[in-house]
Amino acid sequence: MELLESIINRRTHRESFLDENISTVHLNHLIEAARWAPSPFNVQPWHLVVITTSQKKRAIGKLTANAIIEQFGDPEFLDDNSRWMRSSIEEWVDCEDGVLLQDQVNVPVGLSKPSVLKPVIKHASHFSKLGKFGGGKPAEETENLINCAPMLLAISMDRNRKPPGAGHLRWMWLGMGAMIQNILLAATELKIGSQFISAAIERTSDREKLSKILDLPSWHEVISLLRIGYLEKHNANENTTRSFRSVRRKTTDFVSYETYSQKKADEIKESSPA
Amino acid sequence: MELLESIINRRTHRESFLDENISTVHLNHLIEAARWAPSPFNVQPWHLVVITTSQKKRAIGKLTANAIIEQFGDPEFLDDNSRWMRSSIEEWVDCEDGVLLQDQVNVPVGLSKPSVLKPVIKHASHFSKLGKFGGGKPAEETENLINCAPMLLAISMDRNRKPPGAGHLRWMWLGMGAMIQNILLAATELKIGSQFISAAIERTSDREKLSKILDLPSWHEVISLLRIGYLEKHNANENTTRSFRSVRRKTTDFVSYETYSQKKADEIKESSPA
Ligand SMILES: Cc1cc2nc3c(=O)[nH]c(=O)nc-3n(C[C@H](O)[C@H](O)[C@H](O)COP(=O)(O)O)c2cc1C
Ligand SMILES: Cc1cc2nc3c(=O)[nH]c(=O)nc-3n(C[C@H](O)[C@H](O)[C@H](O)COP(=O)(O)O)c2cc1C
Repeated sequence: MELLESIINRRTHRESFLDENISTVHLNHLIEAARWAPSPFNVQPWHLVVITTSQKKRAIGKLTANAIIEQFGDPEFLDDNSRWMRSSIEEWVDCEDGVLLQDQVNVPVGLSKPSVLKPVIKHASHFSKLGKFGGGKPAEETENLINCAPMLLAISMDRNRKPPGAGHLRWMWLGMGAMIQNILLAATELKIGSQFISAAIERTSDREKLSKILDLPSWHEVISLLRIGYLEKHNANENTTRSFRSVRRKTTDFVSYETYSQKKADEIKESSPA
Repeated sequence: MELLESIINRRTHRESFLDENISTVHLNHLIEAARWAPSPFNVQPWHLVVITTSQKKRAIGKLTANAIIEQFGDPEFLDDNSRWMRSSIEEWVDCEDGVLLQDQVNVPVGLSKPSVLKPVIKHASHFSKLGKFGGGKPAEETENLINCAPMLLAISMDRNRKPPGAGHLRWMWLGMGAMIQNILLAATELKIGSQFISAAIERTSDREKLSKILDLPSWHEVISLLRIGYLEKHNANENTTRSFRSVRRKTTDFVSYETYSQKKADEIKESSPA
């Protein structure tokens, strides 16, 4: 696959994967991609814990489910959520950002019309207070996805591998992000799907619980958790299923020249395209 | 280029680039790669400022030079530096991490023997206190590289585009790292070299100065600064020049199974390689 193709085709997969183990060859390919990421002063602060046993998956699934239930009881989370949750493809394409609610949870038929769904999303914290909905169902769905995933990848950062400079933590985080992107891109090429499971590690207390599950030393911090597995054949080939859509802001919205607000690049326009 | 090839061949380039503008087509390719990065709740918090005028480059070059000079006067920086600075290729390959001093600065001939260089690096803060060396030369070299680069890319993060959840800043940073990696990989394929210039933005005060130069709004924070340009032909093709070497830790050093310290993956070994 061409690089830009992998970059554009990489998607977040929120459905179940094929019931098939990731082959050693493919796992090694993902690890080799991770290995060559850049990091400040080449400190390579990362550690990967590959999880395939159902005992560990179940422990992580339970941790995640609890975290999701608590998120749904937190008005601030729900309000922030409203800002990015889209109730229809039209709205999503129009906004050019955020996520489609239908991609996140199975929406009950009675709520699926955008005209009904939109106000529910907007006033989620209100409905939650009234006890009208909770995180039970999404928590259960996610727990199930975790338990059934062929593989989880827990990614930690070794705080002792710190580069010089006041900004060292910033550069370590960027390096971690680059490393994860390498994994996601390599996975795309192998028709391996992936999903971040961030709910499990939003809060310090949950990260500590996960550290215990993984037996991480005290100088390691959990940075990311991924669900990984082979994609259904139709997922891997088509652009029409739930998991194969996404939107992005227009280039002109996030690129400027010389200063933040200067939108035209006369100098660059004059150079001849290769 | 194959994806894994781009991932492995991507290098940090600390030498001058060809005196040739980045073409619009190529710039758009880098931007398109950035655009499709993943981000939490698809908030896409990034903004890119493309810099090609010598006025802006000079302002950033000066900011960087000052920052480097101050770094060289900071004993803590120099001590942290010693840990990751390698005095010979042999030492570097053996350590599997850190950076080669000769790749960072032009080492004076009198110091170039590893047996001389190693203790100098180790006791850098001591030598610095004695006034035996300062950041003048590296500062000047870097300033010059910045002034002569065909393009700088300043990357900022919009704090207002914050996703829900206690860990939101963490996820934003990982997304920024993924986005930058997309740019670096796309550049590799186009034989465009790149270098992070982090010295300019290690400290809050310097980031604020850079924000002023770029006229960033208050809710934006500078995250990264890249020097970008076409590579010399020999750089682009050979693996032997200063800029085309790197080392990495062995896979077994940073991958484990089920828990942090478990090194064998019996389950995975049993699955048949594809
Ligand atoms: C966030 C970040 C900041 C970095 N800052 C600098 C920098 O200021 N100057 C520099 O020469 N290299 C910088 N690097 C590059 C690393 O030194 C480089 O990635 C590492 O030594 C591995 O070498 P490679 O990129 O050639 O594989 C940075 C890398 C990252 C990820
Ligand atoms: C650091 C980070 C954390 C994320 N956490 C989650 C998550 O917990 N659950 C999830 O379904 N998607 C998560 N995502 C995926 C984003 O929602 C996704 O990248 C974005 O919506 C764009 O869609 P795409 O990845 O399909 O292009 C995360 C992404 C990043 C970069």
